[in-house]
Amino acid sequence: MKVAHLAGFALSSAVLGVVISYSAATETLPENASPIYGVTIPEGYRDWKFIAPAQEAPPLDELRAVLANDIAIDAYKKGSLPFPDGSILVKLAYKRKQSTEFSPATVPGAATTVQVMVKDSKKYPDSHGWGFGRFVNGKPVDVAQHETCLACHVNNVKDHDYVFTRYAP
Amino acid sequence: MKVAHLAGFALSSAVLGVVISYSAATETLPENASPIYGVTIPEGYRDWKFIAPAQEAPPLDELRAVLANDIAIDAYKKGSLPFPDGSILVKLAYKRKQSTEFSPATVPGAATTVQVMVKDSKKYPDSHGWGFGRFVNGKPVDVAQHETCLACHVNNVKDHDYVFTRYAP
Repeated sequence: MKVAHLAGFALSSAVLGVVISYSAATETLPENASPIYGVTIPEGYRDWKFIAPAQEAPPLDELRAVLANDIAIDAYKKGSLPFPDGSILVKLAYKRKQSTEFSPATVPGAATTVQVMVKDSKKYPDSHGWGFGRFVNGKPVDVAQHETCLACHVNNVKDHDYVFTRYAP
Repeated sequence: MKVAHLAGFALSSAVLGVVISYSAATETLPENASPIYGVTIPEGYRDWKFIAPAQEAPPLDELRAVLANDIAIDAYKKGSLPFPDGSILVKLAYKRKQSTEFSPATVPGAATTVQVMVKDSKKYPDSHGWGFGRFVNGKPVDVAQHETCLACHVNNVKDHDYVFTRYAP
């Protein structure tokens, strides 16, 4: 009985160990957080201030707009780089759709992605202080897609603190 | 001398009359207000919340975005029509420009027009409660251009309280 009891105890510990590890992993990157960076969609972002619109050519063929929180807005208005810690930018993207009411216009169709950049120089020392998140229907896309973010920003806009979008007047 | 004096008085009155009329006209519609409607660019509009982006085809070839004040935003979020008095919508427009940093993207070039709609059912009973203003470099465009606003909105979007832009998710 004593051996069986000990074996049972060992088994319980092993199971418990697995559970603890699993909990730790999900705490670090919850389901709604981007892989690699752990970025989530910030609450209330849809009411943030407007930076600029953009269009993405086919095949994506999207209309886009970037909003930002007040920390980032202040940096934009001052024209000061780098963006301070706490800056968050959110890009909204929509399929570009012919307006049925005004023939020269194309307007937002279905929402496609929400893309987030968070500045936190302590949390993201290996990506120039930026964490990235790309979301479809509120859920982060896979690791492979997130692996593409940093290289593109580094290759193209390192002189603008790795941010593409400029403030539209 | 007496006749000459009277004639001089009459002339002065006529001149004064013109001056008074001119003053009255400029008081009703100051230089920065749109003809017909007297709409001005609302202070602080650039920090208002974002409704939606749009693209205008060539020859204008513009990227656009509509912002709105909180009264209009609330109406949009509730989906309630007509928009209440006090609602203001502002459309920002920019020449569409090829991004030099990311080849699939076009981005804002020079700002072109700022276009404003103000809901005031008492002030604008003859235009379904809406006043219109179109501005280039902060100055209102001419009467002829403002005469085109109402007909286009009435012909195309009377079922959406004469407003084209829908709230993008």
